[in-house]
Amino acid sequence: MKTISENRCFGGIQGVYTHASEATGTDMTFGLFRPEHPTGAVLWYLSGLTCTHENAMTKAGLQGWAAEAGLTVVFPDTSPRGGGVPDDDAFDMGQGAGFYVDATREPWSKHFGMERYVTADLPETVFAAWDLDETRQGITGHSMGGHGALTLALKHPGRFRAVSAFAPICHPSASEWGRDQLAAYIDQPEAHDATHLLLDGAALPPCLIDTGTDDQFWDKLGTDVFARALARTRSEAALRLQKGYDHSYFFVASFAAAHVAFHAEHLA
Amino acid sequence: MKTISENRCFGGIQGVYTHASEATGTDMTFGLFRPEHPTGAVLWYLSGLTCTHENAMTKAGLQGWAAEAGLTVVFPDTSPRGGGVPDDDAFDMGQGAGFYVDATREPWSKHFGMERYVTADLPETVFAAWDLDETRQGITGHSMGGHGALTLALKHPGRFRAVSAFAPICHPSASEWGRDQLAAYIDQPEAHDATHLLLDGAALPPCLIDTGTDDQFWDKLGTDVFARALARTRSEAALRLQKGYDHSYFFVASFAAAHVAFHAEHLA
Repeated sequence: MKTISENRCFGGIQGVYTHASEATGTDMTFGLFRPEHPTGAVLWYLSGLTCTHENAMTKAGLQGWAAEAGLTVVFPDTSPRGGGVPDDDAFDMGQGAGFYVDATREPWSKHFGMERYVTADLPETVFAAWDLDETRQGITGHSMGGHGALTLALKHPGRFRAVSAFAPICHPSASEWGRDQLAAYIDQPEAHDATHLLLDGAALPPCLIDTGTDDQFWDKLGTDVFARALARTRSEAALRLQKGYDHSYFFVASFAAAHVAFHAEHLA
Repeated sequence: MKTISENRCFGGIQGVYTHASEATGTDMTFGLFRPEHPTGAVLWYLSGLTCTHENAMTKAGLQGWAAEAGLTVVFPDTSPRGGGVPDDDAFDMGQGAGFYVDATREPWSKHFGMERYVTADLPETVFAAWDLDETRQGITGHSMGGHGALTLALKHPGRFRAVSAFAPICHPSASEWGRDQLAAYIDQPEAHDATHLLLDGAALPPCLIDTGTDDQFWDKLGTDVFARALARTRSEAALRLQKGYDHSYFFVASFAAAHVAFHAEHLA
């Protein structure tokens, strides 16, 4: 692991690091915020389409709240990058758009092992480098990262004590943001769709979702069918539709305190 | 005035607008945060080298605290921009580096009227468009914007009830960040140097300054001579050297709450 930068931030350190990943066959860059007084609890923040590790760590405003709660926050990248890694002209496919699945189809299968990256390679690096408690992990994310948070929580039972999401893509196999992309990456898109996973019986940890009523991408999120699925499965969840908010980081920052508090409570 | 964007943010609105400015002879873009419950008080936030109106409104994390305090925050651009506006290859000269002075020297004099822009044209537009209280204004800024905040407060007595700054350039006429630039823009750099203005008897409103002890640009800030000037003039001021912090927005965000609270107290 190599340190790219470390900045003092709310009494702790906002770092950026690179490490080699087997899952992607590339070097990967990630951000990690260490509070001054870490409790050992870890919050994973998965970002959305076009983002790198950097967007949320500069714009989501999580660190101040994480510092108060003693949470360590990890900001993974959204895909492998660089020479030799396939890409697509579309912003929602290829680099910057890994959708947190392990691609099995060509040309993506060689590098786009993002589920393994986020759930195996990166945790291995992080837990080796810092003194953190693997039994106290939460996961959150925005948009495509909300899809990642929900599906990884559903697919890795027991791993995360809590899951939350900002404007998540909840039903990607029926969305312009997910249908074609998942079909290009993998054979069974439904197996990486939070609505399908939940209705098929996967266990969801306590869950908090905020989505803006003026989200300009509302039609791509599938909030309605996921809301129905949460109710049908009687899941422990809060889905809050926030009046007038859109899909931007201004929305994420506005509710960052609530999400950090939610995770801190469950990771205490 | 034309609306470029408006996003719901912490219960209020983060807007971006353009308007024609006589002082610059161009259209200018600015950000403005309106809290849900405005008290009428206004905080001006001046940005640093290379920044536009956008950097602070996305990365400084002021809005949540401004929302609580009912402060309206204005984020001006740092220079005129666009075709016909002169520029320089250096990042610290020309577009993105107006230094908040009214240039009188060629080729800058035609467009670089940044002091008039920030103290006349933009206030006129803002106070016409929104119901705000001209008697309750505070000013803050980062780096070159800290220089702007301090010098404009010193040069416009009675206008601002409080002034604060994050890692300000305090003595530009003796700094790599200011000496050559001010000499290129104007005839009397000392007349736009906070240290000189203060020692020459200008009145400083109550003042809060935070600067990081690990600021990578420490040598360009002149914090030591300004500290001495504050003490010599027995000014009502707090200068806090924050251990381990650098010059980044991670530093600014870490102390945003304190600066908003400081202004809110003086603008109550």
